[in-house]
Amino acid sequence: MTELPDPAAMKQRAAALAKIRDLVGARGWIDSAEGMAPHLEEQRGNFTGAAAAVVKPGSPEEVAAVLRLCHEAGLPVVPQGGNTSLVGASIPYEDFTGVVLSTGRLNRVRELDPINNTVTADAGCILQTIQQAASDADRLFPLSLGAEGTCQIGGNISTNAGGVGVLRYGNMRELVLGLEVALPDGRLWDGLRGLRKDNTGYDLKQWFIGAEGTLGVITGAVLKLFPKPRETVTALAAIPGPDASLRLLSALQRETGGGVSGYEIMTRVALQMALDHIAGNRDPFDRIHPCYQLIELTGPRTDGSLRAGLEAVLASAMAEGDVRDAVIAESTAQGRALWRLRESISEAQKFEGASIKHDVAVPVSRVADFMRTATAACEAELDGIRVVAFGHVGDGNIHYNVNQPAEGWTGDRFMAEQPRFNRIVHDIVTEMRGSISAEHGIGRIKKAELAHYRAPLELELMRALKAQLDPGGIMNPGKIF
Amino acid sequence: MTELPDPAAMKQRAAALAKIRDLVGARGWIDSAEGMAPHLEEQRGNFTGAAAAVVKPGSPEEVAAVLRLCHEAGLPVVPQGGNTSLVGASIPYEDFTGVVLSTGRLNRVRELDPINNTVTADAGCILQTIQQAASDADRLFPLSLGAEGTCQIGGNISTNAGGVGVLRYGNMRELVLGLEVALPDGRLWDGLRGLRKDNTGYDLKQWFIGAEGTLGVITGAVLKLFPKPRETVTALAAIPGPDASLRLLSALQRETGGGVSGYEIMTRVALQMALDHIAGNRDPFDRIHPCYQLIELTGPRTDGSLRAGLEAVLASAMAEGDVRDAVIAESTAQGRALWRLRESISEAQKFEGASIKHDVAVPVSRVADFMRTATAACEAELDGIRVVAFGHVGDGNIHYNVNQPAEGWTGDRFMAEQPRFNRIVHDIVTEMRGSISAEHGIGRIKKAELAHYRAPLELELMRALKAQLDPGGIMNPGKIF
Repeated sequence: MTELPDPAAMKQRAAALAKIRDLVGARGWIDSAEGMAPHLEEQRGNFTGAAAAVVKPGSPEEVAAVLRLCHEAGLPVVPQGGNTSLVGASIPYEDFTGVVLSTGRLNRVRELDPINNTVTADAGCILQTIQQAASDADRLFPLSLGAEGTCQIGGNISTNAGGVGVLRYGNMRELVLGLEVALPDGRLWDGLRGLRKDNTGYDLKQWFIGAEGTLGVITGAVLKLFPKPRETVTALAAIPGPDASLRLLSALQRETGGGVSGYEIMTRVALQMALDHIAGNRDPFDRIHPCYQLIELTGPRTDGSLRAGLEAVLASAMAEGDVRDAVIAESTAQGRALWRLRESISEAQKFEGASIKHDVAVPVSRVADFMRTATAACEAELDGIRVVAFGHVGDGNIHYNVNQPAEGWTGDRFMAEQPRFNRIVHDIVTEMRGSISAEHGIGRIKKAELAHYRAPLELELMRALKAQLDPGGIMNPGKIF
Repeated sequence: MTELPDPAAMKQRAAALAKIRDLVGARGWIDSAEGMAPHLEEQRGNFTGAAAAVVKPGSPEEVAAVLRLCHEAGLPVVPQGGNTSLVGASIPYEDFTGVVLSTGRLNRVRELDPINNTVTADAGCILQTIQQAASDADRLFPLSLGAEGTCQIGGNISTNAGGVGVLRYGNMRELVLGLEVALPDGRLWDGLRGLRKDNTGYDLKQWFIGAEGTLGVITGAVLKLFPKPRETVTALAAIPGPDASLRLLSALQRETGGGVSGYEIMTRVALQMALDHIAGNRDPFDRIHPCYQLIELTGPRTDGSLRAGLEAVLASAMAEGDVRDAVIAESTAQGRALWRLRESISEAQKFEGASIKHDVAVPVSRVADFMRTATAACEAELDGIRVVAFGHVGDGNIHYNVNQPAEGWTGDRFMAEQPRFNRIVHDIVTEMRGSISAEHGIGRIKKAELAHYRAPLELELMRALKAQLDPGGIMNPGKIF
């Protein structure tokens, strides 16, 4: 993707690299193959990129200074947080000759204000560190996702991360009050305001949230905190299908006033894989059911009213046929075991051969229709294909994966069919005015799909902002566009 | 603000006006002085603008077609919703020669999806119409503000409206899922997606929210709905001051899990004016107190638990001295009477002479400090000045108005001091990393303040987007910048 520059430009780049090395010092400079490896390998082994060096600035000002040198020399930069992107956004291309800029050393929780309900943190803070800081102050930072022990908050912001708490607390975008960003030309923008209301011109921070590092490097953020819930109730319901799931959700939201903090659907195929391949998982029900609904409610009270409300809704849903069986966790350990069923699906899928993954969203009212239509289309296309569908049904966001048939296919041959199944699934999503990337972003692997499905006008507007902020095109080149 | 164009350009504009008149027809064209008057007068009588015509397109496509003609002829456009702006954003300047584009005929609720919890509406829908449509479907559209019977949703979005529900439901920005926008060059962008999650490139709708019509004309929107609360409890507490207010808020949020849906502070001076000048208002307490806190809690249950929780928190706050006295409304009528005390302050202020108004926000943890510091500074500057402070303390947003001394000043002489008091108050706000316009926007009357207080880098970034989308500068000229 990167064109080789002419000799004069190459000399300029070499000089810039030397200046950057001097600037960040030994602690911030890695150019050995072993040292760079963790920053150049995609976590699932899908890509291995190249770079002249991995740079780890020690302060926001150093990040800005590095970008200024890159800007002046036309040296491209791939910003990187915890390198947990699922779309290759944080990995340079194979022929990349610029630098990877890691925010790993910017890992300080700068300030927690319990009255303003905010935490100000460096971009390189691990998500779990921020969750813990909030919890220590009797507050909740609600972003929660599989990679929370490794991913960095700057990356979460740059991808507008979703996860399991969106239904109640919103995406990352809703959790950001202020940002500090090193711009592509090396200026450091201090937008670290911790305000609930501010209508003084355009809301600049919105530009950088979800921009996947193509418009600058986020170096710090002010994040919203919430009251820590006092009671959590976790349950698993066996249900006939997604229609029932959505009716049950409406009833639970009405009962709890929006207290549903987790709402994850799993088809039987998905659960079966988690049961078959992940040690310790067990089916809480005696019979096999078509679909399962993981439910988590949280509330401020400790009088058992949340559980009582859940029991009432489940009983009523059972009478109406929307729930066939249900278990409510009696302990935190039991609750974790239910969550583990859901969380181990991705891992379990690997034991069943290759899988073509789709991270899609449709309006919540179309989820059942989407699952029916897409499954019929995929099964009609290929005999024996196994649809593994699960995810954040309350947000309309389904991880809609299709596994290779159990017999007669190699993984490689099946993955060669990816474009065909992407087209089938994404066409249905688009017809329903849905999203072909609900939470993972575009990065590298969904560029072609974005170009195919997004209206030309929208791509033109996006490119206009990109050209304005990063005229040299040095920021995370070849990502999104 | 508008330069007169040369003769050739004037001819082109005249031709464009004729084409626009043909396009929108008689129902969509107003050029008589009486007809235009309501569209050219600021509601409080502060400004009277001019225009060649007021244009009322009958469809989003017509809006786009009008903008295309304006774009081609360089004819400037002032978009206008309900014309309830408090900063002159919707009124053209006195020497304006372009058109006012009113969205008043775009007043259809297009679709309400109770499962997706969304409503899709034309930009010209009155806010109250949308609230009612939601309520009819057993849902809540939470935006609520004084002008809700007249303001239009497109204007609410263009100003990122706040109001009394922000603490619980967020600003207008948080309530928008999708937008349809006529761009300055006359293209209609269909971004009417009703998705909770969508990470497919830059989030274009964010650009137009809060842009005050300087980047295009919003013609439609998909808005979030919420479960309708089943129980509402309204109370008024007499408190020693803002420090106590914030401690009380923390306790209420902990008790209700974020169930505080309204939280409005009023100083005694503010309440006194509402009592003195607005018929029907009465002080619910026997004694005079320094400060008052209006509290509204909403919840999903009908068992009285919300009220019981409130009583427990108030009792505990009384024991600690944070509440001196309190009344809880026993009926909807009593609740409305308590709200009326708060809502009539602005009207009451007019009977006490001229008032210099500030719509500021600081971090919630700085509110008490802000009120003390600003009041000391204003009183030191002018003997007898009366600080009337009230508002959304839970968001850190205080309407901090200063009334002329009761004697010895004319209104005009006092208003001539506005720049001096703006500087005093806004300096304190800025030192606390606050906002000089928390919810009303910039429009016309805060342009100079914005230019003074916003970092040059921020203004440059804003101007860059403006230049990109509206290179001819035809959209709401002279507003914000």
